[in-house]
Amino acid sequence: MSTRNVPEVAKQSKTDVFIIGAGPAGLMAAWWMARCGINARIIDKRGTKVINGHADGLRPRTDELFASMGGGIQEKIEAESYMFENLKNWVRGPDGKLTRIHTQLLCRNYVDDLPSPFLPTTISQGRIERFIIDGIDEISQGKFQVERGVMADTFTYDASLENDPNGYPIELTLRTLSDSEANPKPAPGAFGGRDVVAKGNMPRDELTHPTAPKEAPGTVEVVKARYLIGCDGGHSWLRRQLDYKTEGSTTDSVWGTMDIIPMTDFPDIFFPGFIKTDLGTLMIIPRERNLTRIYVPFSDEANGERFDRSSITLENIVAKAKKFFAPYTLDFKVCEWWTVYQVGQRVSESNQHPGNRIFLAGDAVHMHSPKVGLGMNTSMQDGYNVGWKIAMVAAGAIRDENAFLSTYAGERYPVAKQLVKFDRTLFGDHGKVDPENFRKNHVEFRDFSDGFKLEYPESVLVSQSTSKQTAATGLTVGESFKHHRVLAHATSQLCWTTKLFQSDGRFRIVLMAGDVSEPDQMARVKKLCDQLESEKKDASGKETSLLHNRYPYRFTFGQHPTQDKTLSTGQHPSITFLHEKPRTSMISLLAIHSAVKSTESLTVFDFPAALYGPFDAGYHGYDYTRILVDEAVHYDRYCDGRAYDRWGIDRTRGAVVVVRPDMHVGWVGDLEDSDALVSYFATILK
Amino acid sequence: MSTRNVPEVAKQSKTDVFIIGAGPAGLMAAWWMARCGINARIIDKRGTKVINGHADGLRPRTDELFASMGGGIQEKIEAESYMFENLKNWVRGPDGKLTRIHTQLLCRNYVDDLPSPFLPTTISQGRIERFIIDGIDEISQGKFQVERGVMADTFTYDASLENDPNGYPIELTLRTLSDSEANPKPAPGAFGGRDVVAKGNMPRDELTHPTAPKEAPGTVEVVKARYLIGCDGGHSWLRRQLDYKTEGSTTDSVWGTMDIIPMTDFPDIFFPGFIKTDLGTLMIIPRERNLTRIYVPFSDEANGERFDRSSITLENIVAKAKKFFAPYTLDFKVCEWWTVYQVGQRVSESNQHPGNRIFLAGDAVHMHSPKVGLGMNTSMQDGYNVGWKIAMVAAGAIRDENAFLSTYAGERYPVAKQLVKFDRTLFGDHGKVDPENFRKNHVEFRDFSDGFKLEYPESVLVSQSTSKQTAATGLTVGESFKHHRVLAHATSQLCWTTKLFQSDGRFRIVLMAGDVSEPDQMARVKKLCDQLESEKKDASGKETSLLHNRYPYRFTFGQHPTQDKTLSTGQHPSITFLHEKPRTSMISLLAIHSAVKSTESLTVFDFPAALYGPFDAGYHGYDYTRILVDEAVHYDRYCDGRAYDRWGIDRTRGAVVVVRPDMHVGWVGDLEDSDALVSYFATILK
Ligand SMILES: Cc1cc2nc3c(=O)[nH]c(=O)nc-3n(C[C@H](O)[C@H](O)[C@H](O)COP(=O)(O)OP(=O)(O)OC[C@H]3O[C@@H](n4cnc5c(N)ncnc54)[C@H](O)[C@@H]3O)c2cc1C
Ligand SMILES: Cc1cc2nc3c(=O)[nH]c(=O)nc-3n(C[C@H](O)[C@H](O)[C@H](O)COP(=O)(O)OP(=O)(O)OC[C@H]3O[C@@H](n4cnc5c(N)ncnc54)[C@H](O)[C@@H]3O)c2cc1C
Repeated sequence: MSTRNVPEVAKQSKTDVFIIGAGPAGLMAAWWMARCGINARIIDKRGTKVINGHADGLRPRTDELFASMGGGIQEKIEAESYMFENLKNWVRGPDGKLTRIHTQLLCRNYVDDLPSPFLPTTISQGRIERFIIDGIDEISQGKFQVERGVMADTFTYDASLENDPNGYPIELTLRTLSDSEANPKPAPGAFGGRDVVAKGNMPRDELTHPTAPKEAPGTVEVVKARYLIGCDGGHSWLRRQLDYKTEGSTTDSVWGTMDIIPMTDFPDIFFPGFIKTDLGTLMIIPRERNLTRIYVPFSDEANGERFDRSSITLENIVAKAKKFFAPYTLDFKVCEWWTVYQVGQRVSESNQHPGNRIFLAGDAVHMHSPKVGLGMNTSMQDGYNVGWKIAMVAAGAIRDENAFLSTYAGERYPVAKQLVKFDRTLFGDHGKVDPENFRKNHVEFRDFSDGFKLEYPESVLVSQSTSKQTAATGLTVGESFKHHRVLAHATSQLCWTTKLFQSDGRFRIVLMAGDVSEPDQMARVKKLCDQLESEKKDASGKETSLLHNRYPYRFTFGQHPTQDKTLSTGQHPSITFLHEKPRTSMISLLAIHSAVKSTESLTVFDFPAALYGPFDAGYHGYDYTRILVDEAVHYDRYCDGRAYDRWGIDRTRGAVVVVRPDMHVGWVGDLEDSDALVSYFATILK
Repeated sequence: MSTRNVPEVAKQSKTDVFIIGAGPAGLMAAWWMARCGINARIIDKRGTKVINGHADGLRPRTDELFASMGGGIQEKIEAESYMFENLKNWVRGPDGKLTRIHTQLLCRNYVDDLPSPFLPTTISQGRIERFIIDGIDEISQGKFQVERGVMADTFTYDASLENDPNGYPIELTLRTLSDSEANPKPAPGAFGGRDVVAKGNMPRDELTHPTAPKEAPGTVEVVKARYLIGCDGGHSWLRRQLDYKTEGSTTDSVWGTMDIIPMTDFPDIFFPGFIKTDLGTLMIIPRERNLTRIYVPFSDEANGERFDRSSITLENIVAKAKKFFAPYTLDFKVCEWWTVYQVGQRVSESNQHPGNRIFLAGDAVHMHSPKVGLGMNTSMQDGYNVGWKIAMVAAGAIRDENAFLSTYAGERYPVAKQLVKFDRTLFGDHGKVDPENFRKNHVEFRDFSDGFKLEYPESVLVSQSTSKQTAATGLTVGESFKHHRVLAHATSQLCWTTKLFQSDGRFRIVLMAGDVSEPDQMARVKKLCDQLESEKKDASGKETSLLHNRYPYRFTFGQHPTQDKTLSTGQHPSITFLHEKPRTSMISLLAIHSAVKSTESLTVFDFPAALYGPFDAGYHGYDYTRILVDEAVHYDRYCDGRAYDRWGIDRTRGAVVVVRPDMHVGWVGDLEDSDALVSYFATILK
């Protein structure tokens, strides 16, 4: 940890949560701070967000997070992104001819099954960052913004304050950079003298985005923080401050990458693909806005020696790519971005400081080949995971903060290791690619890479030990919820469960109510609801109801102090956005039953009051939206009445499922298991 | 026509197209002007757009127009709107009990058939206007905006200039209103003394919207125009200037309407519904943002006499509604909007001046009961229809301007008459509603009200006489195209045909290429393409090709003079938004073939060059996006390979379909009917 060297006059400040780095990981963590109204800051040494290039593959699981975050983030991304399917394998035979030998289906079957509401797609990292930034801007009403051109310079940590709830064990000095420091010039000749630049192909709104006002260059500030998240990328400055080693190695695999609008007579330029020749294997990734990304291998030219990648220009990449494509032509007038990189496959020795005050997320933890298409996704999932957990703790909602926060490392560190292992298997120890090998491993690692099998271990948040997994065999405790489309019992509205599980920090008790048209089953449902609503002595001896007042809602969404913007129009100060129903508890109950056609015979008021009450005397009256049904409708092909089957739940007897704020399954049981359910929450919340 | 009374010093100006009224009709017409870069203006006497209340039912056909317009308009609407299904009928029996007697399915079957890519929904008119306004702002880069608080005051018409292509036969004086004139105060006690106002429930971005800067109140301007569109609503000022009578009558049916967040124990408050009692029939329309609209009948209280509706307050409406709902409770704290209206059922004697320079659209032509849910939809469809036609003429693209423009009256006037007839049938001559009658007529008029059977008659644009309707029995010449989801042959991308038929003023030749895996069929496809590409003598004796250069593209989308905004970032002046492929011809050719699994055996380059060429040496090279296939895919349930069946096209032999810029079918024939196809365009374009 570095020594301090700060002018006496430096500005002093405090914040609860400090985030270094506003890439995909940092932005997701920051979104949670904005969402929960946490006192937080985020800096990035660069003067702008990523505008073009970098990552581009988006996985369905990440899209599910965006859908849950709301604010149109998922919809905006979907509208611009490119469906990623039908990998084409080409080889140059002994006769020198280039032939397509095989087409590989990448995508699971969405007709007979339903892997996710969303498809795997490609879209520029810059656009994704853009939409998250806009989302943060909207929910914070413009008050929470990335401080750009600001660098974290020194770091000290006072371990003695670690367990002091009022302590600020972290101290950083920040330095505002000059414009030239914050915006390094691209390499000379970046576009090979071509008369085009990248910006010409940008979406119209891409070139401006919300950014905090900047201090004068050279301004130094000393900031104290309770929690620190290092999302500062593969060369993580914070990782070095913490002296965490990285395990793994830099391979001798060097790649040139370019995002071009291709001009070619190669027929498969807009499909994902490989071209394997004696020069190695080239990779094609089609994209939105008529772009195609081409990965050109350079390692073999190094003949095993260490290779000076800074000598490679765009012209070299193009020249080599042309050799792969011959006899087809390849040219372009527009190159939106290009780079040369050497594949490293490394994992940080840890992603969390033992005191549970400092965390690393994203590339700061795991470095690997960009071509695996998981760097950005895993980084965002890291940021999302650590973000909601720190927000919960910062809001004072958590009983055992150390046990709770250490689930970050518990859940995400094995993912980091698995990711790098996957990368090594897919691309070999040398970071090279072999199409046959790719095909085999794509299938073998698919459950992991699609985010279906992450294997979050037992913890305060994942209670396999108190669960009855047999009640819902398709919803594995620890894994992400399997989303389906369901019908709202009292409104005809359809929604994906991603939308039911809004990212608002609440846990959901999903009462899979089974066949409520059977009086016996409805009696079981009522009994459970009674137990959840009934007032019982909590740890402090107070009589409280699990559902309503034992764990009051801690966040201020809808009453965020920054929402005064809307007050200028003269309405009553307490009225903002009434279409948001009030949240009063950290636990929300909703039911998904299986009684097909019962919307005629049963109204919401035939269900227990816990499912439509309490009556909100403020504005909303009863809530008609929390009873849903797994039933096929004639106006939608995805709402097909097959959710219970996928979830492995008995259609008559149902089950109970706890969905965590990040949509992972925390607990599963029968309708009679209310004691275990109550304990699940008692262990976590205070 | 009124006499002039204008200060000598008034500002003088000229414009090609002038639009009075920025409601749904005027905004749609204005969108076309912005889209095509036409010199145009739009005024509205009101100081703001509609913010709450007014119309709320959106039909799938209108959504299809939004999808074709692009810019995210459709997506934004869909994200906020409320699915409209399961009409519940309640009656009070002789015993005084209120019982649900019947549920009526409103929605067609989207599982076995595919009526549209979109569902019927409800959403506030204000939001729809908002998204169109944003769309206009975006495509005009902020340069084309509604001039608000400006009123058209006098009108003169010089018929002698009617046929002068350089003439401005129309002269208007405009007057800028004061803020109090432009923003009339709502009726006193509008919210019944309740401590809430409507704005509290608005979406966050609703209260600001782009508006042109305003002149000083009292400013008078004399403006000359070539074309004038009156979209000035039911009390149309322009209609009165033109001395057009209205046929029909004001009924004695008086309704009170309120948009509330209901607090009730009535179980079906979020379904569409009727409550029939001895007080008449009350109507329930559920909506987005937890709102429900309630229509309360008042006519019976008038006892046949003319009724002073200005005496009815919100309190009266609530009191009467409570009687309908008893024994259920009905209350609210939030009323977003309320009004009282008397149903008129009238049609203007004409919607088009014989000189083809002046047009009426929307409520200015047809007035009827709001409850039929077609006022706003028909108005938008009017505005869209007249908008593209005037844009085409103003851009100089049209051969016989009179014949072309008179198709507006030819197509839309019968729709206006049919609409009012439908309204009379549905709600009776007295504008009252009977649920049984509603049910019967809903089904009988369904094809009309859903926009499937509009029966646009034979004209320069609708050529039944030269068509061979048997080639595509499901795509009726004159009706709107039946949209389906199709697969792009060379990219894996899926799209609705709405997206293929972008509203850019182009006609599409849709070559339903049939089974191109059969060499004979591919030969037929090639032959047709050759004929369309080949250079032939046109009317002026020049050798031109129908497809490429006979009818050059007239609009400046992508090179709109207002796009200099993007140039500030320093890119090459000719490069803006390269993801838009260049449009060079008023006619675009695309193919949808039926050869399932042929994406492996056929590449784009196995098709005739007309389907992937010409090579764009500018930036894009070949076009890989214009060959599509009607094939089921494993990653989408709507792309089901059943389009040909719905279109009534032989899967082997295919057909040729001309889709007009407004997505109506203009012509249908066989692959051998190229002569008729060529003449279709020769009649329209120059
Ligand atoms: C040039 C490049 C090309 C890539 N190409 C691909 C690809 O083709 N496919 C793919 O899947 N992935 C690719 N990646 C990886 C992918 O972008 C990452 O996995 C993803 O961005 C990781 O997100 P992150 O938030 O962890 O880190 P980053 O996106 O790297 O963000 C880290 C941020 O921290 C800031 N920062 C660092 N140190 C400090 C400091 N001391 N003070 C203040 N700010 C600091 C940086 O400016 C940066 O904005 C690429 C990354 C890079 C850099
Ligand atoms: C109070 C009210 C309630 C309604 N409720 C419903 C409903 O519940 N359901 C339903 O389906 N439909 C309803 N409608 C009808 C629906 O709103 C109309 O069918 C639709 O708005 C018609 O669109 P339009 O563009 O033709 O006319 P309008 O929306 O009426 O727009 C006309 C515009 O022209 C402007 N204007 C008029 N004269 C001049 C002038 N001389 N100079 C400048 N500007 C001028 C007006 O300010 C107005 O903005 C309602 C309409 C109103 C007014």
